[in-house]
Amino acid sequence: MKEVAIGIDIGGTYSKLGIVDRDGNCLTESSISTRDHKEFDNFLESIFKEIEHIKSPLKDLIDVKGIGIGAPNANYFSGNIEDAPNLNWKGVVPIVKKFKKHYNLPTYLTNDANAAAIGEKIYGAAKDFDDFIVITLGTGLGSGFYANGSLIYGFNGFAGELGHIIVERKGRMGTAGLRGTLESYVSATGMKRTIFQLMADSLEESPLREIPYIHMTSKKIYEAAMKGDKLALEAFELTGRYLGEALAIAVSHTNPKAIFLFGGLAKAGDLIINPTRKYMEKNLLEIYKNKVDILLSGLSDTNAAVLGSSALVWSEGN
Amino acid sequence: MKEVAIGIDIGGTYSKLGIVDRDGNCLTESSISTRDHKEFDNFLESIFKEIEHIKSPLKDLIDVKGIGIGAPNANYFSGNIEDAPNLNWKGVVPIVKKFKKHYNLPTYLTNDANAAAIGEKIYGAAKDFDDFIVITLGTGLGSGFYANGSLIYGFNGFAGELGHIIVERKGRMGTAGLRGTLESYVSATGMKRTIFQLMADSLEESPLREIPYIHMTSKKIYEAAMKGDKLALEAFELTGRYLGEALAIAVSHTNPKAIFLFGGLAKAGDLIINPTRKYMEKNLLEIYKNKVDILLSGLSDTNAAVLGSSALVWSEGN
Repeated sequence: MKEVAIGIDIGGTYSKLGIVDRDGNCLTESSISTRDHKEFDNFLESIFKEIEHIKSPLKDLIDVKGIGIGAPNANYFSGNIEDAPNLNWKGVVPIVKKFKKHYNLPTYLTNDANAAAIGEKIYGAAKDFDDFIVITLGTGLGSGFYANGSLIYGFNGFAGELGHIIVERKGRMGTAGLRGTLESYVSATGMKRTIFQLMADSLEESPLREIPYIHMTSKKIYEAAMKGDKLALEAFELTGRYLGEALAIAVSHTNPKAIFLFGGLAKAGDLIINPTRKYMEKNLLEIYKNKVDILLSGLSDTNAAVLGSSALVWSEGN
Repeated sequence: MKEVAIGIDIGGTYSKLGIVDRDGNCLTESSISTRDHKEFDNFLESIFKEIEHIKSPLKDLIDVKGIGIGAPNANYFSGNIEDAPNLNWKGVVPIVKKFKKHYNLPTYLTNDANAAAIGEKIYGAAKDFDDFIVITLGTGLGSGFYANGSLIYGFNGFAGELGHIIVERKGRMGTAGLRGTLESYVSATGMKRTIFQLMADSLEESPLREIPYIHMTSKKIYEAAMKGDKLALEAFELTGRYLGEALAIAVSHTNPKAIFLFGGLAKAGDLIINPTRKYMEKNLLEIYKNKVDILLSGLSDTNAAVLGSSALVWSEGN
């Protein structure tokens, strides 16, 4: 019998799930729609059914040690999802309690960025690191901090909200009502806003001028940049500057050995890493210079979110 | 026999030492000049002599469990003071090794802001807190972070250098060659620079205009503010704004229960705490609002630095 954990990643559109062994091998994977379940109880019913569905061919081979769940606005301490703006289920959703009642298995909840950090520690490139940061670059910007070998949860379970620090006074309006937040510049959405700002500021020609706002994506900006489009390259430079300056601040807080970039935007590789590193180094105190690596996540891309969630089970000592 | 720790706080001008019990009672205290000892070995000789001097009347009553040392540019991991700009002793000073050789007692070294945080945890107002921050406001600005009940040291032992984060692009030159650092605004020196900036910007009359730069102190600004001097009050408002904005960023990193202000400037009480709290709250994400206390240090002022250093001995499990 192989010891495994069930990992579940709840996103605004889809929820992914998988069965993962201690070495980070994902034995089987699936997904269900999140958005189509207006009621949380219906969602639960569907996800329980899907878990049984993927478990059943393996049932004589595996010993399930626990369940790890990553979700937006997740609170590790309470086990609740609280007022998640991107989910249908309003108010406080006691997801851990419901899972424990159904399965009688150790069940843990954390937000997606913390899950990514735990995944990096348990299966990924941070196995031997006690002090590191994971930055998730998706629709928004999330972060998870390890210090002294442990994830920092904070007093209310809300540590690591780097996406909402203010990096530009009187800057862009952010999703949570604060202006000039890091996330409003450094994320897929932020890049899209940046390319429109640059098109307004400059007279430089670009094929991106043919794309309306609602159809612009960071992938299209990436593809233009790879073809040498000046505006697209400038958008990556600006995004890297904001991220690098913010990481210099983060380094002054916890002095990590490395910072891992995770998620869609990170796939741009050197286009995002090079300016990020340049501006981080420029803003670092001498004692930190050339000592902090900026790396890509060591988790395989296709099921990274499920891996991260499943890792919670092992990190809790099961 | 009472179990005690020896606490030593090495400053640029003086070094203070004391004998402290587990409850934080300082049984005896003394100090020697740091600056007059051009050579580190002479300093050692003097401090060993002074330790014997204060120990001798208590020698039948106490059992010394260890020695804790707080110093600028101290590295907890190496036990060395490294390239401290404000000390006579250049390069790498292996202070822990020298103490262990002389006394054969557990000996620990950390920087003064970390020592203040450990003191707050062991004897002060943070006894029951696992997640908090201490900000030391002296000539410069230091910080110590607790998360999950442990001090964050970081990979190289240099976590918590909040004084050197950049809060104003193209701002004032800071001591470490970076422009616009928090410390260049929020510290005794920073306030002095601020009052001169305000005197240049404004035509408001003030008795502070009679004082030359070299004789200006944050205490004189405090006294003027207490008499209602508009420029002095504006200096506190501006200082509190920079500190509050920076603390909003710090909260987004580690989500502390409380932030303690420690040191000379903190004595200004509400004059500094009120604007700091106002601007911190204004810049916090909703989930943190009205949840983080800004408090004055619970360590007695006269020997707080010695208490902090001695607390290292207990926090290491002796």
